[in-house]
Amino acid sequence: MELKSDSVKILTFDVFGTVVDWRSSVIAEGEQLGAAKGIKNVDWTAFADAWRAIYRPYMDQVSSGQMPWTKLDDLHRQMLEETLNKFAINNLTEEEKRHFNRAWHRLKPWPDAVPGLQRLKRRFVVATLSNGNISLLTNMAKHAGLPWDCVLSAENVRCYKPDAEVYRLAPRLFDLDPAQVMMVAAHEHDLQSAQKHGLRTAFVHRPLERGAGKASEGPAPDRYDIVAEDFLDLAGRLGV
Amino acid sequence: MELKSDSVKILTFDVFGTVVDWRSSVIAEGEQLGAAKGIKNVDWTAFADAWRAIYRPYMDQVSSGQMPWTKLDDLHRQMLEETLNKFAINNLTEEEKRHFNRAWHRLKPWPDAVPGLQRLKRRFVVATLSNGNISLLTNMAKHAGLPWDCVLSAENVRCYKPDAEVYRLAPRLFDLDPAQVMMVAAHEHDLQSAQKHGLRTAFVHRPLERGAGKASEGPAPDRYDIVAEDFLDLAGRLGV
Repeated sequence: MELKSDSVKILTFDVFGTVVDWRSSVIAEGEQLGAAKGIKNVDWTAFADAWRAIYRPYMDQVSSGQMPWTKLDDLHRQMLEETLNKFAINNLTEEEKRHFNRAWHRLKPWPDAVPGLQRLKRRFVVATLSNGNISLLTNMAKHAGLPWDCVLSAENVRCYKPDAEVYRLAPRLFDLDPAQVMMVAAHEHDLQSAQKHGLRTAFVHRPLERGAGKASEGPAPDRYDIVAEDFLDLAGRLGV
Repeated sequence: MELKSDSVKILTFDVFGTVVDWRSSVIAEGEQLGAAKGIKNVDWTAFADAWRAIYRPYMDQVSSGQMPWTKLDDLHRQMLEETLNKFAINNLTEEEKRHFNRAWHRLKPWPDAVPGLQRLKRRFVVATLSNGNISLLTNMAKHAGLPWDCVLSAENVRCYKPDAEVYRLAPRLFDLDPAQVMMVAAHEHDLQSAQKHGLRTAFVHRPLERGAGKASEGPAPDRYDIVAEDFLDLAGRLGV
């Protein structure tokens, strides 16, 4: 590895899947809601996957200009309506839908995320770089104890990854060369977009993101500056 | 006081003067630099005051459109050049000027600021709402241990206080009514602008901001929702 980690000043983190376990959190909130409302015959795992499956298509509508800038909370809400229809759930009040939609503000961190970030922030600025909106990321951090130095979001630039503006945000705000910023993610497409804009990259394995037995293969050797098992391993590899 | 503090969700803080003691911090850094560079006959207190005195005039150039959007780090640098000229200091290297300019990233908090924010954040989202740029506020927080949930800045909306967009930022990002956001500041002009846009207000006395014996009178009774001696007193008055 050619990386001189001394030159890296900021670590920017993808959040959904990389820092937090969105899937089991949303399943658990769905099951809770289903029990409270007496909703039968809904597979909440399938529900969570269906809700998430339309994430990219909805954001693509914004990226293509078909839809004006819309923050993720509001996209999530539209996606929720579509998913509720699909599962024929029609007995939720407005307040219950609003609360369920905010399940994305209450996602649980992977077990290594909080201690890993605490170690990493001794040396680096640790910031989100997520398609989640600023209030979503702030509320999530408060709920989960994620010790971000700074919440950066697609909302800062009003466009979604993989738009170049998102990857240029941290270098621009912190007056850094792109190579002084390292993108951390469990998703290769995110890291490859970051690379295209000159950022350093760290891949973190999250084999359970899509459920047991759904892990994708790890990346090709040398494809990224670092490949780590989790955030504690990442800290070790960065010498913190 | 008519305030139902239960309705307040976020506290947004002015930073320079309200959270951190910019003046003694900049004086100390000036004295250190002067000693290291053998600069004689400079009154660093006068220097700090002169540097700060042109803060508003420089920002006004941006607000009036005479100057394009320029983040505070870059305004501080132009103000530093002007102040160095004024004091006939001409032996600093580029690196020394760059470092001195970043004194604003290393300002010391008032003694109650960190424990006060730690208490306040148990109940409220605590966020900056400062003319300081995002990296300045982030680096300052890291340096001083300020436990912000979220760094919000004039830079988010690319205009300076008292522009309405700055005061509308937290309600907009967090989907709140303005009355669910409370602006905390030691400066009446800031609070009065916040009031104009519907925010709740808390005045905090900082009698030493401009040096001993320079305290302005406190505000008129009932002018703001809360008048507090410091952040711990503010926490008490908000029932935290």
